[in-house]
Amino acid sequence: MKTRDRIIHASLEMFNEQGERNVTTNHIAAALSISPGNLYYHFKNKQQIIYDIYLIYEKRVDVNLQVPTDRVLNINDKLTYLQSIFQGLWDFRFLHRDLQHLLQNDEELHKRYNIFFKRCLKSTQDIYFGLREGGMLNANDADLRALALNTWILVTSWFGFIHSNLLIENEQEESRELLNAGIYQIFAMERPFLKEEFREPVAKLVEQLGLSLDQLSVLPS
Amino acid sequence: MKTRDRIIHASLEMFNEQGERNVTTNHIAAALSISPGNLYYHFKNKQQIIYDIYLIYEKRVDVNLQVPTDRVLNINDKLTYLQSIFQGLWDFRFLHRDLQHLLQNDEELHKRYNIFFKRCLKSTQDIYFGLREGGMLNANDADLRALALNTWILVTSWFGFIHSNLLIENEQEESRELLNAGIYQIFAMERPFLKEEFREPVAKLVEQLGLSLDQLSVLPS
Repeated sequence: MKTRDRIIHASLEMFNEQGERNVTTNHIAAALSISPGNLYYHFKNKQQIIYDIYLIYEKRVDVNLQVPTDRVLNINDKLTYLQSIFQGLWDFRFLHRDLQHLLQNDEELHKRYNIFFKRCLKSTQDIYFGLREGGMLNANDADLRALALNTWILVTSWFGFIHSNLLIENEQEESRELLNAGIYQIFAMERPFLKEEFREPVAKLVEQLGLSLDQLSVLPS
Repeated sequence: MKTRDRIIHASLEMFNEQGERNVTTNHIAAALSISPGNLYYHFKNKQQIIYDIYLIYEKRVDVNLQVPTDRVLNINDKLTYLQSIFQGLWDFRFLHRDLQHLLQNDEELHKRYNIFFKRCLKSTQDIYFGLREGGMLNANDADLRALALNTWILVTSWFGFIHSNLLIENEQEESRELLNAGIYQIFAMERPFLKEEFREPVAKLVEQLGLSLDQLSVLPS
């Protein structure tokens, strides 16, 4: 692996595990057994590393949200979308822990994120329109546009919600179980729009994927 | 007004308008034309002022979310709930701009917020159960529990969403219009559960209250 890629790779891992604020470029260099000077040859500062990691994340989400043009969407597509999105949240979790802070510190990143948001919102709308076209949803355009925006907010706020609202130890806080409970919440939002014959099969899919916070005994009963 | 109350009052206003991070206890004392020593007589530091403001907010939300025990809920109750909640978001907007940061800096506040969250979630569930009892909603318990949690996340993330995702000037960013667009999103989530005969009247209520971000031309069309 090239040094540049090794830096990106190690930084992402360290940011995820230790929190971006607790990791300096010196820590990263030390972890890779390279000199700080060598690191600075590739990246002028930590912000630039973050920016480059963000670009990788963005690209991945763009791919994940693509809507096939040669066929209509089916029930498994929805599952695949959510799984890949939540996998992305997990793999780049440092970004979602403290996004507001990262955006405040980098105007260019903030501008880019705004464009990314609009593109993702459009893709999410297209996915819901596609599911309707595939005969699964019963909803008008305004319903689906609002649903797409609510989905975006719920997905991107899920980490922050867990952090701020649940009092759990750090490791547990970021368990896959808690993360996947977000999938349950997204499906719950879409459920009332599902045509009758799809409710049972979708419920079964959701159960395999993620339990609700109720079921994880995190919420008051 | 007592000095203590004047400090609380001025701090809230300055935090809301200038951002909590930009306001020091010296600024607050100067704005009130009192000495820093006088301020410190009442509050040992800024964190304590924030904590006390939070207590006022918490009390207000608790009152706002009360469910009447002597009658069933009707369509106007839902409106009143949302209006008062969004008014609270507005009046204490510095809290919601940067909640994660405030909670990270104050363990006691974080613990208290966790208990508050659970209480609010329970109240929100009770409200939805009450609306169902009032004959407005068609949903099972799991639907309403998930709806309550999604409502909580959407409401408490709305400010953060506007901040991170929309690129608008600061004043505009916190316009009441943008805030009220959140009301539209909450209603959109509840809409599919509304019984047929309530859809039209609720839609009319929502229109008076808040336009969608689409209608505010903030989103891509």
